[in-house]
Amino acid sequence: MTDLSRIVAVCPGTYDPVTEGHLDIIRRAAGLFQQVVVGVVAHSPRKDTLLTAEERLTFLEDSLGGSDNIRVEIFDILLVDFARKWGARALVKGLRAISDFEYEFQMAQLNRKLAPDLETVYLMASPEYSFLSSSGVKEIAKYGGKVDDLVPPAVAARLAELFS
Amino acid sequence: MTDLSRIVAVCPGTYDPVTEGHLDIIRRAAGLFQQVVVGVVAHSPRKDTLLTAEERLTFLEDSLGGSDNIRVEIFDILLVDFARKWGARALVKGLRAISDFEYEFQMAQLNRKLAPDLETVYLMASPEYSFLSSSGVKEIAKYGGKVDDLVPPAVAARLAELFS
Amino acid sequence: MTDLSRIVAVCPGTYDPVTEGHLDIIRRAAGLFQQVVVGVVAHSPRKDTLLTAEERLTFLEDSLGGSDNIRVEIFDILLVDFARKWGARALVKGLRAISDFEYEFQMAQLNRKLAPDLETVYLMASPEYSFLSSSGVKEIAKYGGKVDDLVPPAVAARLAELFS
Amino acid sequence: MTDLSRIVAVCPGTYDPVTEGHLDIIRRAAGLFQQVVVGVVAHSPRKDTLLTAEERLTFLEDSLGGSDNIRVEIFDILLVDFARKWGARALVKGLRAISDFEYEFQMAQLNRKLAPDLETVYLMASPEYSFLSSSGVKEIAKYGGKVDDLVPPAVAARLAELFS
Amino acid sequence: MTDLSRIVAVCPGTYDPVTEGHLDIIRRAAGLFQQVVVGVVAHSPRKDTLLTAEERLTFLEDSLGGSDNIRVEIFDILLVDFARKWGARALVKGLRAISDFEYEFQMAQLNRKLAPDLETVYLMASPEYSFLSSSGVKEIAKYGGKVDDLVPPAVAARLAELFS
Amino acid sequence: MTDLSRIVAVCPGTYDPVTEGHLDIIRRAAGLFQQVVVGVVAHSPRKDTLLTAEERLTFLEDSLGGSDNIRVEIFDILLVDFARKWGARALVKGLRAISDFEYEFQMAQLNRKLAPDLETVYLMASPEYSFLSSSGVKEIAKYGGKVDDLVPPAVAARLAELFS
Repeated sequence: MTDLSRIVAVCPGTYDPVTEGHLDIIRRAAGLFQQVVVGVVAHSPRKDTLLTAEERLTFLEDSLGGSDNIRVEIFDILLVDFARKWGARALVKGLRAISDFEYEFQMAQLNRKLAPDLETVYLMASPEYSFLSSSGVKEIAKYGGKVDDLVPPAVAARLAELFS
Repeated sequence: MTDLSRIVAVCPGTYDPVTEGHLDIIRRAAGLFQQVVVGVVAHSPRKDTLLTAEERLTFLEDSLGGSDNIRVEIFDILLVDFARKWGARALVKGLRAISDFEYEFQMAQLNRKLAPDLETVYLMASPEYSFLSSSGVKEIAKYGGKVDDLVPPAVAARLAELFS
Repeated sequence: MTDLSRIVAVCPGTYDPVTEGHLDIIRRAAGLFQQVVVGVVAHSPRKDTLLTAEERLTFLEDSLGGSDNIRVEIFDILLVDFARKWGARALVKGLRAISDFEYEFQMAQLNRKLAPDLETVYLMASPEYSFLSSSGVKEIAKYGGKVDDLVPPAVAARLAELFS
Repeated sequence: MTDLSRIVAVCPGTYDPVTEGHLDIIRRAAGLFQQVVVGVVAHSPRKDTLLTAEERLTFLEDSLGGSDNIRVEIFDILLVDFARKWGARALVKGLRAISDFEYEFQMAQLNRKLAPDLETVYLMASPEYSFLSSSGVKEIAKYGGKVDDLVPPAVAARLAELFS
Repeated sequence: MTDLSRIVAVCPGTYDPVTEGHLDIIRRAAGLFQQVVVGVVAHSPRKDTLLTAEERLTFLEDSLGGSDNIRVEIFDILLVDFARKWGARALVKGLRAISDFEYEFQMAQLNRKLAPDLETVYLMASPEYSFLSSSGVKEIAKYGGKVDDLVPPAVAARLAELFS
Repeated sequence: MTDLSRIVAVCPGTYDPVTEGHLDIIRRAAGLFQQVVVGVVAHSPRKDTLLTAEERLTFLEDSLGGSDNIRVEIFDILLVDFARKWGARALVKGLRAISDFEYEFQMAQLNRKLAPDLETVYLMASPEYSFLSSSGVKEIAKYGGKVDDLVPPAVAARLAELFS
């Protein structure tokens, strides 16, 4: 049997920008696993990001500062390779809705094909964040709407600046 | 921060009977958590069970025998109280399909309301078991269909006996 | 064009028992329509109710007392006939999840076939009640779990009494 | 390669009672396959039927009379064994909604495990029947609602008689 | 209690182009609310529109002309701010399918966070329009397919002209 | 009644690139219908393709070579017109997941409006391919991941070349 004394989990995402919903999932993951590595996808495969990878990493680090067992890293390789590099046994994802479920189900099976030893585990989004997405936040911010309850203060300030 | 050196997880279910799909989820859970307690619901809230609680426990123990960090227990109290009794930090459930997702999402939120410190984590069913349910197995067995690939041999034998 | 000065809406349900989620939908409906009639289904088509129709009506009336434009009525006829009797233009239902959506979509089309002038309108459940159902409440109460935040105090007391 | 000159398809169901939606699927299947066998499940695994198997068969035969390549049969064995008995290459099912999809997906995989050579093919319900189910029809008829557009005339008459 | 004598509802959309499905929802909304304001999103956040905002407004006005309680307006601000400007108590949206439901559920919660007094109410698409979307219409028109039953005649003519 | 001795079915797709999941559906369709025409969409309506239409056709032909009743054709017209041109009675599509179901339901109804005689029939994806999509394959290949089990060898080689 494997040594279970130190299980590493990866929380992957684009985090463009990080929301309170992301932070909730990451903190809950850190209550279940000995070490959590937040993996920031350098380049989103589908569209250009609003923030640079470095900005996205900094906002995560600032919001999660003080957690002993969480670290944040940028990656530009296949997710399963990133997980392997950190010795991770698990990927942790949040599920908000059916469309997440669908996509995640396919990704879980695909990743398992690529890396049979890596489990993907899911946490259901907290009800108060179940409506929250990075793209929703950006759409509100673009029209000058208030996003203070949805993202950390520094992110809200940066979005206001970008869309002013 | 909580001591993370020994995290207990509960895999609850009616297991009437246990299927290869259940065993797959339990074994994968045992690769992620230090101790797994399989919780057998004594009386199903919705319908009578085919097998007694003791039979269901025995089939689980026989199938999982030899795993150091898995034990099987019957319970007849609220799930969150059972989890608390064993000092569990997590419930582990398998997700096969959208209807599972819906039900599980509501249960996760309800259980979180009852026990805020208890996380529910989900593993996606392996593709080869994504079609498998205890009630499907019973329906096949009832008409004399072959269930050997779907449940452990002792369960298949018992079902054949019950429906002969 | 129809006279729109007094639109009646019906909120149908079994309410066995009423939950905070039901009350939220009814109150929100009363902010949109001039008169809301809460219709309590006398006999559930699928299973026996725990509470009598009179008990269910009383708990609703006690919880909604003081709202000028809400009244509660028991009915034992086809829903569209009940709505017609009250001159209702709309049925109001809460949507919590995909499985609700599916069922409601079929009911909406069926009711429209039976009564083309009656619209069914949907309100999304508030996130804090999106996990809440009468059957979930009963299951918790049955095992002695705390349901105080989920139902009105009088309902919680009655459930405790019934399951003691 | 198999001889494709005469492909038999089975349309299984409880048909308690047959609806216009069922007839639509059966007739469309008969436009695609050389021979269609409508298989009437003798005893529903989940609940008692309202009509006897013979009544259900008769209503189907009366409604489908005159179709050269459709026949109706009662069965009380495993569906895949019934299909095999008739030399069927395909099962044909209608899909109305997500919950159908879920259930059907699991049944398709289960049946494929039991009978690898038997394909399950799906036709989407016509929009005008997408809301229609046998249980909905019975619920309406029970309260004296009009079901004339939803089922064949003889079925409507029988339901009126049963619920009077 | 709020004065309910004059409730305004907003029907927001890109309407690129308006379809018979959109018109059905707008007209049904106008049977439930005293005043309906159709809000035409000036710039779609996701992709370029085929028609200008003015064209989209004109096609709506031409199709809805003669309805006393419907007006059409272009907007380029946050939807909740547009609703507030018109004193609207409700947003009215059509639901066609699960993917709509998902997206709409998240938007409803997000908008409620931004404007707690604004309700989002949903009407289920009529079965005959449940398959209809602006992008589907454009795809058909692009290949010279017939869209006469799907959109108003003037829209069909304009699409034919654009894709010729 | 129509002559059913020779039924043609069309399997449409972009096939950018063809996956083992596509091939599984096409081969199963060829077991049900006398003639299968694989229709390769020349230009994807949503995004640029990675491979040319000719490359996509060649990979399909190479993988399906030897099947008497399957041919591959590129098309750049409306799908229903392509089907009509080949005298097809049916379109055959694979269903992997809920999001497929939603999209396919709308397309089926739309196509039926355009061509009432053309049926769309669905086969459920085999469990081992239920996670597989062309875009997933491209994403893995882009980061140098192994796609040998997911696509035919010639496709894997071409992807490696394109992304090197």
